[in-house]
Amino acid sequence: MNTKELAKSAKEASLALLGADSELKNTALEAIRKNIEEKKEEIFEANKQDLQEAKSLVDSGEISSSTYARLKLDENKMRDMLKGIQDVISLEDPANKVLWTKELDEGLILKKITCPIGVIGVIFEARPDVISQIASLAIKSGNAVILKGGKESNHTNAKIAQIINDALSSVQNFPKNVINLVFSRDDIKELLNLDEYIDLIIPRGSNKLVKYIQENTKIPVLGHASGICHIFVDESAKPNLVNDVCVDAKIQYPSACNAVETILVHKNYKELDSLKEALVNSGVKIVENPDTFSKEYGDKIVSLKVVDSLEEAILHINKFGSGHTDSILTEDKNNAEKFMNYVDSAGVYHNTSTRFSDGFRYGFGAEVGISTNKTHARGPVGLDGLTIYKYKLFGQYQTVAPYANGEKTFKHKFV
Amino acid sequence: MNTKELAKSAKEASLALLGADSELKNTALEAIRKNIEEKKEEIFEANKQDLQEAKSLVDSGEISSSTYARLKLDENKMRDMLKGIQDVISLEDPANKVLWTKELDEGLILKKITCPIGVIGVIFEARPDVISQIASLAIKSGNAVILKGGKESNHTNAKIAQIINDALSSVQNFPKNVINLVFSRDDIKELLNLDEYIDLIIPRGSNKLVKYIQENTKIPVLGHASGICHIFVDESAKPNLVNDVCVDAKIQYPSACNAVETILVHKNYKELDSLKEALVNSGVKIVENPDTFSKEYGDKIVSLKVVDSLEEAILHINKFGSGHTDSILTEDKNNAEKFMNYVDSAGVYHNTSTRFSDGFRYGFGAEVGISTNKTHARGPVGLDGLTIYKYKLFGQYQTVAPYANGEKTFKHKFV
Repeated sequence: MNTKELAKSAKEASLALLGADSELKNTALEAIRKNIEEKKEEIFEANKQDLQEAKSLVDSGEISSSTYARLKLDENKMRDMLKGIQDVISLEDPANKVLWTKELDEGLILKKITCPIGVIGVIFEARPDVISQIASLAIKSGNAVILKGGKESNHTNAKIAQIINDALSSVQNFPKNVINLVFSRDDIKELLNLDEYIDLIIPRGSNKLVKYIQENTKIPVLGHASGICHIFVDESAKPNLVNDVCVDAKIQYPSACNAVETILVHKNYKELDSLKEALVNSGVKIVENPDTFSKEYGDKIVSLKVVDSLEEAILHINKFGSGHTDSILTEDKNNAEKFMNYVDSAGVYHNTSTRFSDGFRYGFGAEVGISTNKTHARGPVGLDGLTIYKYKLFGQYQTVAPYANGEKTFKHKFV
Repeated sequence: MNTKELAKSAKEASLALLGADSELKNTALEAIRKNIEEKKEEIFEANKQDLQEAKSLVDSGEISSSTYARLKLDENKMRDMLKGIQDVISLEDPANKVLWTKELDEGLILKKITCPIGVIGVIFEARPDVISQIASLAIKSGNAVILKGGKESNHTNAKIAQIINDALSSVQNFPKNVINLVFSRDDIKELLNLDEYIDLIIPRGSNKLVKYIQENTKIPVLGHASGICHIFVDESAKPNLVNDVCVDAKIQYPSACNAVETILVHKNYKELDSLKEALVNSGVKIVENPDTFSKEYGDKIVSLKVVDSLEEAILHINKFGSGHTDSILTEDKNNAEKFMNYVDSAGVYHNTSTRFSDGFRYGFGAEVGISTNKTHARGPVGLDGLTIYKYKLFGQYQTVAPYANGEKTFKHKFV
């Protein structure tokens, strides 16, 4: 089956899935969980093969040692994978929720109801645990999915996909071809052109990967290319606490997209030297005159700039930021309010670390990804981001003519 | 100012608008309404100029007589325009609504709050009343807008835009450059490339216009290229009422996107001849063997096909339909439920005309457009479709480290 045929069959699977209720979906998830648990040794075997092949790529410099580390599946990651599926089972079904019911007129009832999007394409890099996570989220929300993983984890991905599909084929009434895996780089190009069958693309990986995808498809892309997050230290911020928050936002996980990249400091803030000292003591390199303020270091490096005012800080953030997450540290509530209204980012924080911007920390139970889009879903995206809605109208053979000519009028009453 | 500079200044306007409250926005709308009312004679003058120039285009066949009719602004349309602005004033503000509040932990409060999208590009054809409607919706939702109208209505559009901007410049604290108008076809091409500044494109016009836009931009497009709507007449449908609904769905406004294009009839439905007669008597031409079932007639023509089963009807609709609006006529509730779940369209109806699919009929008060998208907004789109949300997190200098190392745990309690 070529990629186009595979996408077409995924579309058919998504249509068949429209009838799946919560019970069927949870049964399918439990079957997957059980099968992965039973066959985990096979997965470790496949992963060993990937690791062996990757080792030479590390030696030749083709992949980094951090990529190699992410590739490795151990007992801990396996436990997390299994727990992840269990968590998704226990989440509320995001589909078939009645958002509202409105009586348009007597005997003419309109319901706005959540439903799956259709076919989701997910392109991710060397993290084989992503596959079971995305498959679970897709099934729970009633979407079919086409996955393309990093080539470094091909053996592990293929094995996990096979175990998932074996499990699904044992579940009565569960449609075929819901979970699909493709392997080659050429497949990515093809997927990006298949807007006829694919409704949403979610890239999970490097800035470069996400940018490439955003530039090369008309299919809606949910994600973020970069995370250029800011902290603005206002005049009235509490010095010791400022240091804690800034250090946390940078060093707790420097390569995370929600780590701070630029600290803006009000010119009247008195403890700038103490802040610098705290950063340096935590191993952070401070850049006071960067070539550009739109760079994501992804490392223990931070740009630092003194600004004249709150307004200058807001302008700076809206100009150089990526609309991800930005925080103001201040004791002035009006300044906090102004900052949170005028900074045009998915997350705007008052007196807290940018690192809270995360689906698990927000309590979504599972995260599809983090979006800096201005439409559909923004910020950390949970299961809801994989749904849209449809309108169901229940009538008694009404026609519009009498409403158009004024014979009848609408009630428009929420019930 | 070239188009790029104009888009950049619209972006700045959208950021300035983030601080506008309901009162400021309604004051601006009222100023617009008043100024249009006061200067309506100037608008009629400009419209006369457009009509005069368009007349020769009708004679030479460059524009149709229906386009000419849409171009004309008379007292009735002016009254509707003014009432439209009044209606938008009285709608609830869609921005700054708290969707939910969650206590992540003590003193760490997360709020999900609606906010404007940013800059909306609206490309429409010869209907000068669209400009005040879109400007009102944009202002109410807090978005800046760049409008490109049909060249046939350039004089009228320019006059209305000038009257709107004169009114806005008289409103204290209202940002400049919120409502922008461009004129040439080249501007469209440029707009479609300005994804740096424009967040959403809404095309309102012909199938050809919408398709062109969808094919030529990476900016999210909200709309529908075609409306290929179906009615499935099931075995058990009530004959006389079937005829009424089918006739209404076709002839009440044959060129509307929600008019029926294909009627599917169950092979066991007994009154097919009576249905055909009713259609023919209403002036509808029936095509039983069309070249394609994916054509939108937009006229008093309908395709008709006898199908063996509900399942065949669903497959047909999902294959040939445009995901707009589809209706089943049946006395069998199970069949209705199955149809409404498995037909993958924005509107799925039971026993009623497809023509109800409309923002005003749904009670949205004003309609941005109708969308067949699978993300962001689907079906008739009201003011809500011009908003997204941001997360505001209020803390007390918390860091993530203690949550990451297990020292603290999240509460995740809705409050």
